[in-house]
Amino acid sequence: MKKKSRFLQTAIEPFAVEAGLTADQILARMERISFQGRNLAKAHRIWQKMLQDDVTIFLGMAGALSAGGLRMAVAHLIANRYVDCLVSTGANLYHDLHETRGRRHYIGSPRENDAALQDEHIDRVYDTYASEDEFVDNDEWIAAFALTLERRPYTTREFLYRLGEYLWKETRREGILTAAYRASVPIFCPAIADSSIGMGLSQARHREADAGHIDVIGDIVESANLVIRRPRTASVVLGGGTPKNFINQASVQAEFYDDRVGGHRYALQIVTDVPHFGGASGSSLEEAQSWGKLATDAEQVTVQADATIALPLLVSALATSARDALAARKPLQFELSGPAMAVEGRPFPPGRFEART
Amino acid sequence: MKKKSRFLQTAIEPFAVEAGLTADQILARMERISFQGRNLAKAHRIWQKMLQDDVTIFLGMAGALSAGGLRMAVAHLIANRYVDCLVSTGANLYHDLHETRGRRHYIGSPRENDAALQDEHIDRVYDTYASEDEFVDNDEWIAAFALTLERRPYTTREFLYRLGEYLWKETRREGILTAAYRASVPIFCPAIADSSIGMGLSQARHREADAGHIDVIGDIVESANLVIRRPRTASVVLGGGTPKNFINQASVQAEFYDDRVGGHRYALQIVTDVPHFGGASGSSLEEAQSWGKLATDAEQVTVQADATIALPLLVSALATSARDALAARKPLQFELSGPAMAVEGRPFPPGRFEART
Amino acid sequence: MKKKSRFLQTAIEPFAVEAGLTADQILARMERISFQGRNLAKAHRIWQKMLQDDVTIFLGMAGALSAGGLRMAVAHLIANRYVDCLVSTGANLYHDLHETRGRRHYIGSPRENDAALQDEHIDRVYDTYASEDEFVDNDEWIAAFALTLERRPYTTREFLYRLGEYLWKETRREGILTAAYRASVPIFCPAIADSSIGMGLSQARHREADAGHIDVIGDIVESANLVIRRPRTASVVLGGGTPKNFINQASVQAEFYDDRVGGHRYALQIVTDVPHFGGASGSSLEEAQSWGKLATDAEQVTVQADATIALPLLVSALATSARDALAARKPLQFELSGPAMAVEGRPFPPGRFEART
Amino acid sequence: MKKKSRFLQTAIEPFAVEAGLTADQILARMERISFQGRNLAKAHRIWQKMLQDDVTIFLGMAGALSAGGLRMAVAHLIANRYVDCLVSTGANLYHDLHETRGRRHYIGSPRENDAALQDEHIDRVYDTYASEDEFVDNDEWIAAFALTLERRPYTTREFLYRLGEYLWKETRREGILTAAYRASVPIFCPAIADSSIGMGLSQARHREADAGHIDVIGDIVESANLVIRRPRTASVVLGGGTPKNFINQASVQAEFYDDRVGGHRYALQIVTDVPHFGGASGSSLEEAQSWGKLATDAEQVTVQADATIALPLLVSALATSARDALAARKPLQFELSGPAMAVEGRPFPPGRFEART
Repeated sequence: MKKKSRFLQTAIEPFAVEAGLTADQILARMERISFQGRNLAKAHRIWQKMLQDDVTIFLGMAGALSAGGLRMAVAHLIANRYVDCLVSTGANLYHDLHETRGRRHYIGSPRENDAALQDEHIDRVYDTYASEDEFVDNDEWIAAFALTLERRPYTTREFLYRLGEYLWKETRREGILTAAYRASVPIFCPAIADSSIGMGLSQARHREADAGHIDVIGDIVESANLVIRRPRTASVVLGGGTPKNFINQASVQAEFYDDRVGGHRYALQIVTDVPHFGGASGSSLEEAQSWGKLATDAEQVTVQADATIALPLLVSALATSARDALAARKPLQFELSGPAMAVEGRPFPPGRFEART
Repeated sequence: MKKKSRFLQTAIEPFAVEAGLTADQILARMERISFQGRNLAKAHRIWQKMLQDDVTIFLGMAGALSAGGLRMAVAHLIANRYVDCLVSTGANLYHDLHETRGRRHYIGSPRENDAALQDEHIDRVYDTYASEDEFVDNDEWIAAFALTLERRPYTTREFLYRLGEYLWKETRREGILTAAYRASVPIFCPAIADSSIGMGLSQARHREADAGHIDVIGDIVESANLVIRRPRTASVVLGGGTPKNFINQASVQAEFYDDRVGGHRYALQIVTDVPHFGGASGSSLEEAQSWGKLATDAEQVTVQADATIALPLLVSALATSARDALAARKPLQFELSGPAMAVEGRPFPPGRFEART
Repeated sequence: MKKKSRFLQTAIEPFAVEAGLTADQILARMERISFQGRNLAKAHRIWQKMLQDDVTIFLGMAGALSAGGLRMAVAHLIANRYVDCLVSTGANLYHDLHETRGRRHYIGSPRENDAALQDEHIDRVYDTYASEDEFVDNDEWIAAFALTLERRPYTTREFLYRLGEYLWKETRREGILTAAYRASVPIFCPAIADSSIGMGLSQARHREADAGHIDVIGDIVESANLVIRRPRTASVVLGGGTPKNFINQASVQAEFYDDRVGGHRYALQIVTDVPHFGGASGSSLEEAQSWGKLATDAEQVTVQADATIALPLLVSALATSARDALAARKPLQFELSGPAMAVEGRPFPPGRFEART
Repeated sequence: MKKKSRFLQTAIEPFAVEAGLTADQILARMERISFQGRNLAKAHRIWQKMLQDDVTIFLGMAGALSAGGLRMAVAHLIANRYVDCLVSTGANLYHDLHETRGRRHYIGSPRENDAALQDEHIDRVYDTYASEDEFVDNDEWIAAFALTLERRPYTTREFLYRLGEYLWKETRREGILTAAYRASVPIFCPAIADSSIGMGLSQARHREADAGHIDVIGDIVESANLVIRRPRTASVVLGGGTPKNFINQASVQAEFYDDRVGGHRYALQIVTDVPHFGGASGSSLEEAQSWGKLATDAEQVTVQADATIALPLLVSALATSARDALAARKPLQFELSGPAMAVEGRPFPPGRFEART
């Protein structure tokens, strides 16, 4: 009999439908199907491995996930230390703050008349609405908060920690910012100037010329130091954007000062953009390996899917399948209240890349 | 206090992560998030409604779903009469036949060297492999089967029924074709000439000049008669392609002969194509309403997602949530063994559209 | 000095803007940029090469290109023998017939109220409208034409030749069908049953039970024979769909009967679908090589773009750049008026694959 | 005779192929076709109108356009004042700087082995390569430049003006940064921290703790003041990302301080992202109207296309069709050399939003 080709080793196992399947059982049955279903199952497997390994896990978050109903899923990931550091767009933090302050986003239609919405001061994000008047109030609240801070530049990491603290003390409500504050998980927001949080800061500046100073270059130093301190890292990216690149940049920048860094050991991304137009959001993880952003032997997977479908399934599955790994995990302990953050009690040098030790 | 805008009525409810959630619980929690997650949850709700209503449910199936591990999910939908009629591409039926005959598809890589694959007679479908030699054998098997048939034109509906029967008797294995045969669910394959089943038929023709005659125009008549017989219809479309249009065409064609038809009452589609390039696969269900393919008051939803993610979750949920509706459902009874099919014991007029009664 | 890496050989040459550039000059300047712009420039170069080589060029056409204003561009390609054989969806031929019969499609809006359109019997294709009443009239016209034919099965190739002839004699207007008739270029339409041409045929059947017989399996034999007769082929695909696969299938089927075939020598596709969901429309040309649809040393390019942008630029460029090649080209001469087509005066064996000579 | 429906007013005019057509002639013939071809033709028409109207034109630039061969097209738009203000990602400015410094990007393959590339220090951007060693040298050059600046925060606008000046004086070569310097066109880069320019700045900081201070909040104030000063604005967006939102944010922020602003009067975007996943890059211009980013009566169009195809055609056309409008245009005169920019000789208040006058 003819020998089986080396290419035909593991057969596709058709998905078997059954009543009562839980999320982790569904993903387990998707491991041997094809296309993005298989990739999502692989993402589940890789995230489990990250949690069992001694790595610092970065989570990147772009797209309208907070407005779109995933902020408590992200808060869950932070509070339970599925991740160690969040890199986010400003909008996701702003829409989180909006709900933590007790306001809501609303179910809407992508085909509504936008002039009618504008008339009623309703802002639309595809199929989701919010009150512009409430947004104006948020901006003022952020400006007022910013005026409580010292008159010096703050990295976004320090600023957002303070913001989370202020928000928690005022509201005692769960959310991304408050979860990160309570769990001492750092948040970076490299494009803060391109968001309503930035707008609130600019309004603080308008009131007092020495207020609202953000030191985004300091964030680059600090995020790279985080990688230098523990070069074994992992990257989980939702939606691409500036968070995706910033997480990779931390790895590349760290490598300049410590050649043991070597790129992320694990990477998974859930994106809807595609590689063939050349943009960073859709770029492949293979491409990331050419840059050294990702180790060439990293376990990695790209899931081409909307996070509003993929994340509920994936995190629900991990809530079961990763329970033991989470319980056993010893995540990095951060101290975030000052201008220089500390990891495991050892502060980073202020404004400098850490020397290789 | 200012009154709430009419646009801000139903708040987004962030997805709450919890261990042990089942598929239907996950989809229930996705009903009040945004974007495609909400749409998938809505698809779940609409399919449940279809099953409780007195409608004929068409399922359209394009894309490499059989090769990609979803054939048993589709077989489950047929066997348990979540659907009443399948419209498929030839490839999906062919890859189903391949596995029902005991062969497999295999896990592969989208980045493999294709010249190396060709050397070893491996055919690649993105990240999935199969043996070309086994495909050649299938083609011959199909040709041999076709030569067992009478020398007259067969609609694809009759041909595929006979094929399912032959396959079942030979293999006693589950699959799409065999499930449809056993449940007497009709299958239409309008583009059969664009598939390996068509290739097998052409090889029968090569051997005997009067063999391999397929009457695809007869399928148009029969599918329209199916709608005329019971004008209340629903459409479930996976992946667009010829099945999507054929299901809609049945509705439009039926309307010519019976103005009570009025378009599908329910429609859900899971597609990855987009509307803005004008192609039928990505066309919106709103657009379908302009043509009368869909009733203007139909409940409908488009889910922009890969079926290999969306379908396992959706069908797993229905297996629980639709259990009672399926038990109570009285699906149409078909008689498919002859040139003219019969519904509830009453045959269609051969080669003619049924008159309005 | 350090030697240049083997990977850094040909520099990107930024596109230089200049007034008065013609299409071919623009594409020439796009050859050394990146992403899809480079790919489109490469498509231009490959098509030029095809025209200078001794190959049979297949053109596949899916998506709403005829309704969308590209039918005269395709007619130009046929009339001037940039291509030797057209494989089309039924819809593209139908919308061509609609305009050749003197009716029009109209500029519309993708955001119009579709219930209002339905009320006025307007059918919408994304941003384009047409009169449903005129469509009904077309269907009847097609049925009437079909009743003029002999009562025997017609391949789509023969049927469409007769249709083009009838249309030309009635209208004397330019279009795809009439250009193909006048230039004796064969058209195949494997999914004719999934189109309004099929609907017209079904209405002929309704009137006379032995009318409207189409032999799509015969098309498979004939298209494969076309490849066997001259195994050097090229494939130009617009939009994927059944035409893309049918052109590749002709090559694979031909290989069964003549192992000199070896796949297309050139391939270019302009598609908007992507590979990673596994569907045939978006499948890569590399993948096609694993199947032997495409020679492993073929010159090939995929352009990820809407054909309504890419084709006007590409064909305008070729009208200048390929002038000499077109003048020198000796395209295959077809005889299409009977049940068996002839190439260069030699008919194909009816209903049989041609033996290797 | 039946009256024509109000929906059927302007017929599609099929694209007529002809040798020797120039870019503007091609776009003129695309105005009455469908889908994205029509949209690109409309973009051409809208940009012409912008140039004839008294508006400030913002250009947003995301995606790898500089690396991908479009930097000289953008430089042409700046030098000839098709636009008045550039908002860019850091990467586009960095890759521009790379070439202006005399280095190149190279033609590569999207399927190359990335481990092999990494071994040779080649960084890949889809199908384009560059030398990592040259990038390291750029970063050091940027750090060295940053150390020449005063020890105070710089807005990106001021920083990039100085960078362009330095680059021009050193190289005398054309490019985006040098064109903007020479034409006194302001550039904002809200996400500068997420780019290699930011990395260069962080290396300056590493050397001297008080170096490398960027004031991104100051950019928000200044960009809004630009809108307050002349509320009639237009937006041209390539590829979405932070530039798209930042341009819209300037309009929204300006409205807080001057209610005459009212959103952009014209908007065109060339994007590959889609609206239905909720992300900002793909968001529709209709949605922008709900937020007041765009006037509800604005002339606007979204072109779903890769900029590497659309931009060469569009700008080549404008180079001819907009010649007179450009000659007649009196663009805003900026003074950009200090911490507070001036428009038409009148400086903005430092760190404050301008009061309505």
